[in-house]
Amino acid sequence: MTRIYLDNAATTPLDPDVLEAMLPYLKEHFGNPSSIYSYGRETRLAVENARRTVARLIGAHPGEVFFTSGGTESTNTAITAAIRDLGCRHIITSPIEHHATLHTTAFYHEHLGIRLSQVRILPNGHVDLNSLEELLRQSREKCLVSLMHANNEIGNLLDIQRVGELCQQYNAIFHCDTVQTVGHLPIDVHHIPVHFIQASAHKFHGPKGVGFLYVNDQVKIRPLLMGGSQERNMRAGTENVYGIVGLAKALEIAVNRMEEDRAHILSLKQTLAHRLLEHFPELKINGDWNGQSLYTILNVSFPHNEHTELLLFNLDMAGICVSGGSACSSGVEHVSHVIEALHPGTAEIPVRFSFSRYNTLAEIDRVVDVLEELIHQPTHPSLHT
Amino acid sequence: MTRIYLDNAATTPLDPDVLEAMLPYLKEHFGNPSSIYSYGRETRLAVENARRTVARLIGAHPGEVFFTSGGTESTNTAITAAIRDLGCRHIITSPIEHHATLHTTAFYHEHLGIRLSQVRILPNGHVDLNSLEELLRQSREKCLVSLMHANNEIGNLLDIQRVGELCQQYNAIFHCDTVQTVGHLPIDVHHIPVHFIQASAHKFHGPKGVGFLYVNDQVKIRPLLMGGSQERNMRAGTENVYGIVGLAKALEIAVNRMEEDRAHILSLKQTLAHRLLEHFPELKINGDWNGQSLYTILNVSFPHNEHTELLLFNLDMAGICVSGGSACSSGVEHVSHVIEALHPGTAEIPVRFSFSRYNTLAEIDRVVDVLEELIHQPTHPSLHT
Repeated sequence: MTRIYLDNAATTPLDPDVLEAMLPYLKEHFGNPSSIYSYGRETRLAVENARRTVARLIGAHPGEVFFTSGGTESTNTAITAAIRDLGCRHIITSPIEHHATLHTTAFYHEHLGIRLSQVRILPNGHVDLNSLEELLRQSREKCLVSLMHANNEIGNLLDIQRVGELCQQYNAIFHCDTVQTVGHLPIDVHHIPVHFIQASAHKFHGPKGVGFLYVNDQVKIRPLLMGGSQERNMRAGTENVYGIVGLAKALEIAVNRMEEDRAHILSLKQTLAHRLLEHFPELKINGDWNGQSLYTILNVSFPHNEHTELLLFNLDMAGICVSGGSACSSGVEHVSHVIEALHPGTAEIPVRFSFSRYNTLAEIDRVVDVLEELIHQPTHPSLHT
Repeated sequence: MTRIYLDNAATTPLDPDVLEAMLPYLKEHFGNPSSIYSYGRETRLAVENARRTVARLIGAHPGEVFFTSGGTESTNTAITAAIRDLGCRHIITSPIEHHATLHTTAFYHEHLGIRLSQVRILPNGHVDLNSLEELLRQSREKCLVSLMHANNEIGNLLDIQRVGELCQQYNAIFHCDTVQTVGHLPIDVHHIPVHFIQASAHKFHGPKGVGFLYVNDQVKIRPLLMGGSQERNMRAGTENVYGIVGLAKALEIAVNRMEEDRAHILSLKQTLAHRLLEHFPELKINGDWNGQSLYTILNVSFPHNEHTELLLFNLDMAGICVSGGSACSSGVEHVSHVIEALHPGTAEIPVRFSFSRYNTLAEIDRVVDVLEELIHQPTHPSLHT
């Protein structure tokens, strides 16, 4: 059975060219970048070249890019630093953020008494910017605004420019979780008033276990992980050299082919959306899918009934990989906290399809056919063999 | 010029068999282990098998092993948890610990008022156990004892069993930084009263960017990195699957061939030590090199003079990779804090040689020859071409 992988918001396959770029650092170039001799200088150079590449591709200075173990570490670092080093005593976030943001901010609320506010989310899944401005205006404390660029479950896009301007106006620190958008949308921090953005390489065909945190050089923070003087004293621990090299290569490829990939992937998303609406009139699409939305994500809800109850399981049996919520919370939540925030008490069955450049129109056709069989002809024998 | 790599305490080359084990997870098995479908289950299984392997090899339960991004994150997690979750208000450590321990404990001292004590270090570099017991006996607060198993610069070994028993007697939490010993010495936590030990895969021919923290199941702690429910809610962030697979494979190989490698490496260390003492009567060996010492590390001090001033640089020119202090602090410290603690104000030139199974006796011969030329015949032209 050929598998169809439509869970690219959870993780993406490594691009073979990225692996090729990593291999020399998994083999002969193994030195510790902090060592002073030649073996170390080779890998130091590789890390610094990767930093320059990333900086160039996001419009930052190399000194503003710090490599981490991924998105979660980056989020934890930014939020911790905003409170500990930048004087923030009030965090404004939303109920549909990633758990890295929600759990970290809840921790500081509970343990340090940091005030926590949530912006209102509109029925289409967008942040209500009036609610955000109201919270900023009324706050008497220094604020950290932590809102994600693209929601990882429904794909809604934040107006990052407008939020940045509001934060500037009210002297707030702005952390934007850009894990779903780096490598998928053009990002130029030189023109966006933002203090922290971040990435996770495995979301754009790079390796797992590596990411970065951009820290605007207007703010000075201290490390989350303390120890050695790596990353200019901003992130201790021997550098994950092959991961860093792979991250930069993956981002370079992603940015170079962004327009082409975007057109292809957007057509897959739109085709799937239209065909699903056509075949399943009772289906709802979650979020502003046809408006301010990331082209890689389509989230739909099927009505709950005997044919949809085990839909994800049956799709898996048919070789189709999709998800209900985000991978990070699977097995824990019964209903995604994002879908619950949009449709409280819903019993519908949400399915997130997320696409990459490796998906094809033929796969979309197959997915619609399988759904058709599962939902409209649920006893079709071909799926149970 | 053939390079001779004698800085294996900084990092080791990846074993080709480890890379072989990682490659399937860098290629076809790329799923997110937290996903529920088949692509995810394959990698979930790989992560859990790796956990079982590690647990078996250190005498732990699988539920006590948590994968991290490396030694530094493990140290930060253990120390943070001891204070935040286990009620420790007094940290006892030593002046010759790794910077991950020294900087993290200094931070909590400065910011939370945690009391900080340092045990006395004996002239041979060992922890004075009487001093440790005295500190424990006099403390009125719950203590965290954080002492490393093998010092990463001089190789001295702690009596981990005895320290664990003292901690038990005084109801202290015991964190032992075992980064230099996991994979090199037999470790069986089932028989050692210790709460936290840790490893970094790249110290035993595994990949960079991955490690583990063992947390004795008698203590319940919360994560340092908050977010998704990975690692049973103990370490958020998408799992570095290939790194974890590589770590387990590297540890398995290291343990399987430990006796053989130990005999070989110990003979290299002893040969180098004896030949250096013979050729350079003015040389000192730092630490208890011929006693309770890790067989992979030999640290010597040459008298400071015109021929030794640029010794590390000249060794590098001759293709020999060694270090002055630890890699994690190179470029920052002028003199290693470990050597400074043992020999305050010393002007001597410390050189750390650290060995692996890939080193040979011929390399040791060459190193002695080069040192002979550099120090006794410093104008020998062959080194300056």
